[in-house]
Amino acid sequence: MQCEIFYNINNIKMKKLILIRHGESEWNKLNLFTGWTDVDLSPKGLEEAFEAGKLLKQENYKPELCFTSYLKRAVKTLNNVLDAMNMDWLPVQKSWRLNEKSYGAIQGLNKADTAAKYGDEQVLVWRRSFDVQPPALEMNDPKSPRMDARYAELTDEQIPLTESLKDTIERLMPYYNDVILKAFENHDQVMVVAHGNSLRGIVKELRGMTNEEIIKFNIPTAVPYVFEFDDNMNLQNHFFLGDQEEIKRKMESVANQGKAK
Amino acid sequence: MQCEIFYNINNIKMKKLILIRHGESEWNKLNLFTGWTDVDLSPKGLEEAFEAGKLLKQENYKPELCFTSYLKRAVKTLNNVLDAMNMDWLPVQKSWRLNEKSYGAIQGLNKADTAAKYGDEQVLVWRRSFDVQPPALEMNDPKSPRMDARYAELTDEQIPLTESLKDTIERLMPYYNDVILKAFENHDQVMVVAHGNSLRGIVKELRGMTNEEIIKFNIPTAVPYVFEFDDNMNLQNHFFLGDQEEIKRKMESVANQGKAK
Repeated sequence: MQCEIFYNINNIKMKKLILIRHGESEWNKLNLFTGWTDVDLSPKGLEEAFEAGKLLKQENYKPELCFTSYLKRAVKTLNNVLDAMNMDWLPVQKSWRLNEKSYGAIQGLNKADTAAKYGDEQVLVWRRSFDVQPPALEMNDPKSPRMDARYAELTDEQIPLTESLKDTIERLMPYYNDVILKAFENHDQVMVVAHGNSLRGIVKELRGMTNEEIIKFNIPTAVPYVFEFDDNMNLQNHFFLGDQEEIKRKMESVANQGKAK
Repeated sequence: MQCEIFYNINNIKMKKLILIRHGESEWNKLNLFTGWTDVDLSPKGLEEAFEAGKLLKQENYKPELCFTSYLKRAVKTLNNVLDAMNMDWLPVQKSWRLNEKSYGAIQGLNKADTAAKYGDEQVLVWRRSFDVQPPALEMNDPKSPRMDARYAELTDEQIPLTESLKDTIERLMPYYNDVILKAFENHDQVMVVAHGNSLRGIVKELRGMTNEEIIKFNIPTAVPYVFEFDDNMNLQNHFFLGDQEEIKRKMESVANQGKAK
């Protein structure tokens, strides 16, 4: 309410980009490396998504266009956010470029077991180094995206058999620049529901973070992360919506996932 | 499986249009006139949608593009169909032109009470005549679509304050011809999730039914209705997927909704 008054006084209607990381998935719960595996949300994840939507509605956000990945856990998070906002009718565009980082051949492995076997250090490198890739899948591995009809549009060169965070950001950025940012030419509020690492690419770009800074930055699940811009798309503010203590706890919980138990 | 063999022998890959009427809504359950009111699915409706998706998956349907309305009950039916098919990633286009027929000022009234007051005959005329409109809303009525931000793109002339089935079909057909049918130029299977009366428009066109025939034709909820075409988009077959006895029961249940109890 105070913000609304502020905007009126200043005659500024900020443009807003709302980022949301998907809610808890079945494999987050089991602590497995997921990547491009198309895992469902857990019941808790569905609930988190619905709560995020209720919060956005309560705070009077009015996105006009939404983007999400080709992965079920992101699409269903977005569907439930829109359901809670009673904005199911909003246009949604989906792209493989918003998918999670591919963890290659370690997809499906338990994070704690992998850490116990290879050491916390190696797992942290695979999860959190900027440019080191986990071991790659073979192109014709049943787990390879090449074997999945939804990725038929991708050339072999575009199919990620493994990815570093750097690779993820590189395949994300053309879509971010040419589609998501372009949307602000016709829209004031845009919402993106995606994954920890694809969203890291956007946050790094917007906040001008270094490779080291973005690696250490943990985006909490299903918390709306709002970026406000002036009319020339200069960033003015950024903040997480909701209970700040709860958000801090969520960020720490993500950071601890890769450690051996 | 037999169909698959048939296709291979004949070297014909049929193009397919899959129509689905949304599952039971909260107001279907209460027997209220709904129209453009944005009512949620009932738990049963959600389940029906998921079952329709499981059936499509089991029968190996592979839609490539989906269309739905601006109304929650249709969007959520589609979301749940795609979830059950593990095809959440499919592109979806939404349009107000696929919305249900507007029932104008009788939206929100109980069908049985309305029948008791005006008579079965008048209610049947409002529900099922081809070109008689129910009483109209005022443009600035809180229930008017003009007061709803999602319809901001519509001119006052396009805003339906009430509609006959004829009106519904007239505003639907430009979208059906220019967008849905056009999609077959690049796709083999297309899915449309919409409403009893907007889908009647498509069925009437495809089957060349008279005004009287389409009025009497009741589309069951959440049952995939498949139309198969040759390469020149000449209709070859049409059938409901699933248990035919159950489908017949569902069609009769819809036909009986308007009667006084």
